[in-house]
Amino acid sequence: MDTGIDPERAALIALDWGTSSLRGFLMGRDGLVLAERATAHGIQNLPVPGVAGFEQAFAELCGDWLAAWPDLPVVAGGMVGSAQGWVEAPYVSCPADTRTLASRAAVATTAAGVRVVIAPGVLHDPAGAAPDVMRGEEIQIAGALADRPDWARAACMVLPGTHSKWVRVADGRITGFDTYMTGEMFALLCRHSILGRLMPDGGAADAAAADAAFAEGVRTARASLPGDLTHQIFAVRTLGLTRRMAPELLKDYLSGLLIGHELTSGLARAGRSPDDGTPLLLIGDGALCRRYVRALELVGVHPAARLENTAPRGLHRFAAAAGLIAPIGEHHHA
Amino acid sequence: MDTGIDPERAALIALDWGTSSLRGFLMGRDGLVLAERATAHGIQNLPVPGVAGFEQAFAELCGDWLAAWPDLPVVAGGMVGSAQGWVEAPYVSCPADTRTLASRAAVATTAAGVRVVIAPGVLHDPAGAAPDVMRGEEIQIAGALADRPDWARAACMVLPGTHSKWVRVADGRITGFDTYMTGEMFALLCRHSILGRLMPDGGAADAAAADAAFAEGVRTARASLPGDLTHQIFAVRTLGLTRRMAPELLKDYLSGLLIGHELTSGLARAGRSPDDGTPLLLIGDGALCRRYVRALELVGVHPAARLENTAPRGLHRFAAAAGLIAPIGEHHHA
Repeated sequence: MDTGIDPERAALIALDWGTSSLRGFLMGRDGLVLAERATAHGIQNLPVPGVAGFEQAFAELCGDWLAAWPDLPVVAGGMVGSAQGWVEAPYVSCPADTRTLASRAAVATTAAGVRVVIAPGVLHDPAGAAPDVMRGEEIQIAGALADRPDWARAACMVLPGTHSKWVRVADGRITGFDTYMTGEMFALLCRHSILGRLMPDGGAADAAAADAAFAEGVRTARASLPGDLTHQIFAVRTLGLTRRMAPELLKDYLSGLLIGHELTSGLARAGRSPDDGTPLLLIGDGALCRRYVRALELVGVHPAARLENTAPRGLHRFAAAAGLIAPIGEHHHA
Repeated sequence: MDTGIDPERAALIALDWGTSSLRGFLMGRDGLVLAERATAHGIQNLPVPGVAGFEQAFAELCGDWLAAWPDLPVVAGGMVGSAQGWVEAPYVSCPADTRTLASRAAVATTAAGVRVVIAPGVLHDPAGAAPDVMRGEEIQIAGALADRPDWARAACMVLPGTHSKWVRVADGRITGFDTYMTGEMFALLCRHSILGRLMPDGGAADAAAADAAFAEGVRTARASLPGDLTHQIFAVRTLGLTRRMAPELLKDYLSGLLIGHELTSGLARAGRSPDDGTPLLLIGDGALCRRYVRALELVGVHPAARLENTAPRGLHRFAAAAGLIAPIGEHHHA
């Protein structure tokens, strides 16, 4: 089969397997992505139920790669290792790095005998507070830190999303993190609450007005006292009802409120002040990360970088830590 | 028609007309309820759409009272005066009392010529903050203050619910208030969020364990820093996932978190400390108010009273302020 790829270069199949999507990467020894594919076969949307669904989704995505390179190692990260996944890879505790993940990896073996090495998630279990968990983000973080020893030494990594993560990194390891239900809360309020009734479908046509509404939400959040959030959320309705704010701007204002609350708490928990030397990094979807950059700018914090799609590089590092491929930098000498 | 009621005593028909229910009270000159009825014909659940729906719901509930006493005045409060109501009675501004409400009442007249005098809601429009609104609670407060000049002088009135109100009263008037979306947020999170998946239907069988989970939620809320709420809400999931808390207790813990946040903000905005002399009153559904009493107890605040169903007495005062009936205390001398 002609894949158009130099057969000597392929070294790894890496799967980023989440709740709603499955992404596959054919990677070289050097950590570069040679080919990339995606389907909607997330773990809650498999072609058939159960283990057979995982096998089939994997075969559909990577069958020709496996035919061309039968001996390539395969790794996977994300919800595929959860209790609802292919094989459960229980959480490892902080502090954690790719070696920790590799030491507790789980293995799913297909009917054809292909071994898929699955990364565990990470548990943060602080004394006197509720535990917190991540699954998938630890791989993105490993990717972000791959070629940046300065960030690996000490950084605050922010991964915005349905369940945003604020992650503290020190000496190359995840030392602690906090999850915020920001994205899910935003969706719930827009779709199911009394606020949604005042919100037209679609976004604001006037980008400057939308930005001003977002910024106003962030400022309101910053000025809040403990416990104010559900009061401020109700005010989204009142602002619409009294026509103090145009209906098409209410979503931006609500987004600013929720992100503003998240970063107020996140920065405080990270012990981070605006003039702190510790770099703050954003990882994730570009449009969403730009919102966070804007909100952070309003409070005087300037992210050191905004990164997208660091999962393949993280899976490559995980594979190296698991001994499936040579670490980058070492194979040159092999 | 024999209503079983001394015809000399009936003085007023009072309607408490909300979103999901309609309650009617036949009242005496002395403010006592002689008869009481309710239907599910709230303004979002009328028997037919539009104005005809209001007329029909009113006729079904009170037709025989109107037949027996054709000249009785009729008053109404609640969502019936909203933009989606029978006739809109626009909000009056704080400070507001029953005279203010009466001066801005709206009137709906039925096909048969019966006048229904509808109370407006109240707008709180503080400088430098979003406006807030209430509709219906102002009537409940008027009822609560009716025979208590001590409370009318200065009080903090808390009306728990879908949209909880914390209301400041001074010199017999509502001077300001804040709404919290506590009840709606709780319902949204239980019904539509990822948290709900871990929560079994029904409540906890073990009342002591449920109370402990609720108290733990309140304590966690009290210890929070600004912006922590969406992090603490995610922790409800993590506590369930890691089996640190039994699934049947997660709802009580979440309830404690949300109520704890509300009262932290509410007490701070009321400028109220535990040893404050200003009475704090709870008005509303008994079971829900008992939760608030418990939460307040945990922070050292002891409500002066817990009141239910003060709306009829408030509507009676509103009718007197509108000149439809004699104020209590004056008719004895007439």
